Parts: sequence; C-alpha cells; structure tokens
Amino acid sequence: MRKIAIDVMGADHGVEPIVLGVVEALKHREFQALIVGDEAKISPLLPNELVNRVQIVHCLDYVKMEESATNASKRKETSIFVATELVREGKADALVSPGHSGATMSLATLKLGRIKGVSRPAICTTMPTINGNPSMILDAGANTDCKPEYLVDFAIMGYEYAKSVMGYANPRVGLLSNGEEDTKGNELTKATFPLLKEFEFFQGNVEGRDIFNGNVDVVVCDGFSGNLVLKASEGVASAISQILKQEIKKYPIRTLGAMLMKGAFKNLKKKIDHSEYGGAPLLGVKNVVIISHGSSNARAIECAVYQALHALDSDICAKLEKVFESR
Amino acid sequence: MRKIAIDVMGADHGVEPIVLGVVEALKHREFQALIVGDEAKISPLLPNELVNRVQIVHCLDYVKMEESATNASKRKETSIFVATELVREGKADALVSPGHSGATMSLATLKLGRIKGVSRPAICTTMPTINGNPSMILDAGANTDCKPEYLVDFAIMGYEYAKSVMGYANPRVGLLSNGEEDTKGNELTKATFPLLKEFEFFQGNVEGRDIFNGNVDVVVCDGFSGNLVLKASEGVASAISQILKQEIKKYPIRTLGAMLMKGAFKNLKKKIDHSEYGGAPLLGVKNVVIISHGSSNARAIECAVYQALHALDSDICAKLEKVFESR
Repeated sequence: MRKIAIDVMGADHGVEPIVLGVVEALKHREFQALIVGDEAKISPLLPNELVNRVQIVHCLDYVKMEESATNASKRKETSIFVATELVREGKADALVSPGHSGATMSLATLKLGRIKGVSRPAICTTMPTINGNPSMILDAGANTDCKPEYLVDFAIMGYEYAKSVMGYANPRVGLLSNGEEDTKGNELTKATFPLLKEFEFFQGNVEGRDIFNGNVDVVVCDGFSGNLVLKASEGVASAISQILKQEIKKYPIRTLGAMLMKGAFKNLKKKIDHSEYGGAPLLGVKNVVIISHGSSNARAIECAVYQALHALDSDICAKLEKVFESR
Repeated sequence: MRKIAIDVMGADHGVEPIVLGVVEALKHREFQALIVGDEAKISPLLPNELVNRVQIVHCLDYVKMEESATNASKRKETSIFVATELVREGKADALVSPGHSGATMSLATLKLGRIKGVSRPAICTTMPTINGNPSMILDAGANTDCKPEYLVDFAIMGYEYAKSVMGYANPRVGLLSNGEEDTKGNELTKATFPLLKEFEFFQGNVEGRDIFNGNVDVVVCDGFSGNLVLKASEGVASAISQILKQEIKKYPIRTLGAMLMKGAFKNLKKKIDHSEYGGAPLLGVKNVVIISHGSSNARAIECAVYQALHALDSDICAKLEKVFESR
C-alpha cells in the first residue's frame, strides 16, 4: 500500500485542518498515512476506524514562516526534516507539506536529490481555464533568477507532467512573455525561445491571459514571474468577489438575485478554487513532493494527498528520469 | 484652450470608435481636438456643431501592429509620427494614441525628449482596487529589462503622478516582489530595495495581490513583469466572467437571478473596466502622452482625453522636471 508522509506542523492555521484533510482522504482512498507532528494534537482528530492506517511520527518543532530556508533546512528536529527523511529512507513514498515552502524545496532537493540532468527542480502549479482543462504554470516560485537552460528543463518537466499525470494527449507548451510575437520578451525569454523551438510541443510565446483561456496546457517562466502572476491572479479573483459582495448587499432585490444564482456561484468557486487542485508538485526531484499552500483548508490537503497518489500511480519521477537520461 | 492631438489610425477596430470617443469628450469638456488620420473617414463622424473645435490633420499611413518600433519610428508619414510632431512643435499640448505602443513610446522619447534626470520613461497603468481608489502600476511595459536605478525613477514618477494627478495625499509606494519580507525578490528587486528604502513613501515589498487590495497606491516593477501581471489580471477577470455566463445559462432560475442582479454586475464591470480608466500615461517624457489600448472603445478614448486634460491641469510634467532637477 502507498505510504504518504504529511507534515502537519507549520501551516498557517495549525494542525487541525491538515489532519482533517488527511482523514477525509483516508476515507476515500487506499493508502497509509505517516502524519508528522504533535501527537497530542493529532490523536484526538483521528476516528477510531482509521487509526490502524495512520502512523503518527511525533515531532514538536517546525520551521517558522519567517525563517530562512537555508538555515531552516539544517534543523534536524523540524517536522519537515523528519518527514523528508521518511521519504529518503523509503519509509514513505511521497511527501505532502503545507509548511515553509522554501525549506520543503531545499530539503527535498538536498535529501531526495535532483533527477540526473535536471538543472533545477520547479514548482508546477495548476490553474483553472475557461474550457475546464486546467493549465500548468512552472516555475511558480522555486527559482527566482533563472537561466535559459532551466526554462527548457521546466518545459520538458511540465510537458511530461501534463501528459503522464494530467492525461493530456499532446500537451502544448508556451513561454510566458510580454507579447505573442517571436521577437517579444526580456533577455531571459529571448535567449530561451530558440532553445525551445527545437521541441515539437512548443507553441511560442504566450501572454498572461493564455494561462486561463485554454490556448496552452503548460506555461513556462522563471519562478519570480510565475509567483507574481499567481498572486496577482488570486488578487483579481478575490477583488472581484469582494466588489460583487458589496454590490449585492446594497439592495434586497440583488440579494434575492444572488440567492437564485447560488448554484452558479458555487460552481464558479469550485472551478477557480485552489483547494480543488490540491498543492503544487515539486518536479525534478527523485520522489513525489507536493507543496501545499500554508493556508490550505482540509479540502486542499485532501486533494493534495490524491495528487500525490495520482503522481505515484503515473510513475512521473521514473518517467522524468528516463526523459532526462536520453537527452 | 488646451489642444489635444489624437492619432486615430492604427487602432484594432479602425477609425470610428476613436473619433466617436473624441466627439464624446468634446461634448463634455472644453478643448480643441487635432485629429490625425484619414479625413474621408473622420469628417462624416463629426457633428456639425463641433466642427469648429476640430482640426483634421490628414494622414493615411500608420504603423502596423507587426512593425518593429525602431523601424516604424523612422517613417515620417505615419499618423503617430505626425501627431507627435504636432506636440513637439507646440501645436498641441498633449498626445493620445491607441496605435502601436512601441512606436508611440519611441517617438515620444526621441522627439519630445526625456525629462532631465529620468533614466527611462515608464508606462503607468491604473488598476481597480477593492476600496475604490485605483492603484498605479509602473512600468507596465515600456522597458522589458531594467536596472535598479530605473525602478527608483519609476517609484518617484509614480508617487508624483499619484499625488498630483490622482490627488492622493500621501501615496504609498511598494516594490513588486515574490513575497512581502525584505529578503524576498530576484536580483533586480533585491538591488532596488535598499535604494528605495531612502524614500519615506516606500512601503517595502508587495505581492501581486496588493495591486488590487488597496494596501499601496503605486506598485513599481520592471516592464516585463508589469506586462505579465496586467495581462494575467485581464485573463482572470475575463475567465471568471465567461465561466459565470456559462453557469447562468444552465438554468432559467439562474438567468432570472442574474437579471435581478443586473445593477450589481453593471457596477462591478464599471469598477474593473479598463475603458473607465482611459489609457496609460507615459511618464518621464517632457509632454503629456497617453497610450491607449489598441482595442479601445469610444468610452476608453473619451476617458483617455479626460486623462490628458487632467494631466495638463495638474502640470505633472513640470512637477516631474522639478523633482528630478533637485535630485
């Protein structure tokens, strides 16, 4: 049976939502959970019928959000260190962590190791599109300053993930730029463009809007740009929701209208809600690692566990090793 | 009376929406319009009572969207060249152009000249926020690769624009980064951070979401990042609108609900609609230049003309000259 290590310390809202998410996942899928964290807080949240499928690895220390990743990854008593160690030792098959993402990345890269030939591991985030088939954006924040060859590796990894894990037949990969024309871009993307042109999957430059309109399946960029775009997108969605709520409250007739539209809003939320996509896989390391948002709710963690199981089933790491071996 | 030169050629949807936008503005404000473009197409769109407030500068050639800015700015017969020349010669006080933005920037910089001390002119785009006071983001696309000193100049220009033109008492300026902590950023922002720390208006690093949540008034970034964030934001808003429309159509009860909520949707659209903000000023050149979207509708052009008039009234160019003189 698959074994998933979950670091339940160090998330924004404490142990509870993380453990409850794991519990939900246990109810729906076959796997063994290795929950790393404070036993006193974890135990009361576990239903009796699931206890034999959970192993609590007691651990009180965790990486605080304000700690630097370099420093934090040296502290051997932290939950993320212990959880990563479980994967390294083969006691767990995959890692899910909503804690300090910098520390998770550093430890995963250092301890589990990079796949041979991959210049830098990248965070691959799933985004909603209007046609219902999510797109992937990477790097979403692991590498702030990138070289052209990193972006080429991101493209290859994104393509493989879209194909093997997402099941897309012929994933289309675009390079995030400030215009669609071949000549557009900054120094980095202009140097990357000719390298990507060698690949059949490459569709050329794409713009921010193409992340959401279904024109491509995979959007490649440096981790700084990826992070900006993700946070701005979240900001827009949240601003629209807030402005609409303010407007609805102004007149009772609008409130009635909103009630009649409840199902539409619910489905919209479901389609664009990050929770439904789980976390973001760290591609390019030797094992399956899912980085979840620090503010993940139970549903997000539940989905992150499914994502880890799905990634294991698809054998993505072995596939990536093979692809980079033959380059 | 203020004289505004408007290049009506080279926009995505032809001459008509641009001229109709100018006509609307003429009905509501006191100014003289110098419309540069095809007389045969412009004349029929002008109401008789406005003819004496319009001077048509006949011109058939224009810069095509696929032309390179460098090449295009050498072609003296294009509408944007002629319109910029009108400002340079003092025949017009300001320029509004929905044509090729690269050519507009090049020509404005070359012919009107940079304000002394400004390293690079920047495009300053207005964004909606949840508190109703728009924020400014610059550079939104004039300079793809930037140096730290450019970003410092963008910060100063954005601050002055927010103060003088937008009327904000104490504009707060943030540096767009991949996290709020002082240590976050890429090479460029990390080198820029200590330079900006010298300014009282500087609030530190901000994230993409802060463009919309009212935490700051001015967001500073390189033109590549600015462009990515703007296009992604437009993409999210458009995706949400499309998904919601699909959902509403599914059941008649939802359509009824949407009808009752009509006013709320209308106000939301008005709040986030780019048209209402007009165009984006090119800050750092010696005259008022408003760069409008190629796909501007009449309302966007009308607002861009108001924006030009407002910028002239506020004497922003003279104020910027003074600020950079004393540095």
